Amino acid sequence: MSRVTCDLTISLDGFAAGPNQSLAEPLGDGGELLHRWQFEEPESNAAALEGILAAGAYIMGRNMFAGTGTWDEAWRGWWGEEPPYHAPVLVLTQNPREPLEMQGGTTFNFVADGIESALAQARKAAGSKDVAIAGGAQTVRQYLSAGLIDELRLHIAPVVLGAGERLLDGVAKLKLEPTEVSGTRLVTHVRYRVIH
Amino acid sequence: MSRVTCDLTISLDGFAAGPNQSLAEPLGDGGELLHRWQFEEPESNAAALEGILAAGAYIMGRNMFAGTGTWDEAWRGWWGEEPPYHAPVLVLTQNPREPLEMQGGTTFNFVADGIESALAQARKAAGSKDVAIAGGAQTVRQYLSAGLIDELRLHIAPVVLGAGERLLDGVAKLKLEPTEVSGTRLVTHVRYRVIH
Repeated sequence: MSRVTCDLTISLDGFAAGPNQSLAEPLGDGGELLHRWQFEEPESNAAALEGILAAGAYIMGRNMFAGTGTWDEAWRGWWGEEPPYHAPVLVLTQNPREPLEMQGGTTFNFVADGIESALAQARKAAGSKDVAIAGGAQTVRQYLSAGLIDELRLHIAPVVLGAGERLLDGVAKLKLEPTEVSGTRLVTHVRYRVIH
Repeated sequence: MSRVTCDLTISLDGFAAGPNQSLAEPLGDGGELLHRWQFEEPESNAAALEGILAAGAYIMGRNMFAGTGTWDEAWRGWWGEEPPYHAPVLVLTQNPREPLEMQGGTTFNFVADGIESALAQARKAAGSKDVAIAGGAQTVRQYLSAGLIDELRLHIAPVVLGAGERLLDGVAKLKLEPTEVSGTRLVTHVRYRVIH
């Protein structure tokens, strides 16, 4: 059965997004600083970046797909007409809509019956490849708390945000073992095996 | 002039100690889990452990020396008659007392006139060696906030404590650059240069 992985970039003080998230600033105040490693150092972080997009199916929360505002039926995601996933993406929502087929192999499928159902569908779609929990932090917390993630890959930016959405708040009884560590001047990559 | 370093072990969710710190449990609930790497894997963490005790003088907060209870003039620290520092240790306190000369070269000197004065005394004592801010988290925060630390060496334990004393709470405008990363199954070591 495919593994369930999760890549998430957090600040050194544990925030996956800064305060005051909005449609205009979906990562919140200062949140864009978290991702400098992806944009300024793509070559030295090539392995980590490839890992993020190696899954056979993805699961994301409603806010990661559409922000926190009102659901707009015409909304097609933040990623343009050819999103980088090139695979099925299961979007958790309480307002399901028709699947959205994008260019390059990405299809957004909307799942209204919970995280376990989404995971079952993602596993089926992924075949022998991994399933990735793509975010945001709230969705990752739900899957972590349910013990459904096998590998957590944190990308720790050397940034102190001071406020925002903390990845691990309220996640209890998590047992982790670091299995690999690497980094650059803009990020520290730590790969954790979740001990079930 | 000697560098100012700081080694601190924190949980993955950023706590330097668990909740309910007391004299009986100075690291708080679960806090001992943070330090498994020091006791269970001293050989694979030898370089990090040597770094912690390589300074020419140390500065620590009052609570690290004596806990949070009433000041007891007879108290000689947690470390027995031969503490591991083998160097002058400046203890920040509002109740100064006579210096305490221990075996093996450690002397506890009590400083009542603030963190900058303690640092000046420590620099003088350290000669060409580094000055280390030994803890606890509150003292580290004070020195970080004042821009007085040059290198922060975090030892991140793969443990989620959920509550306790957070190292970086309230530390604003900290600019860091990771310069070295390594680890074992019980800890991830990240060395940060503080950009002044």
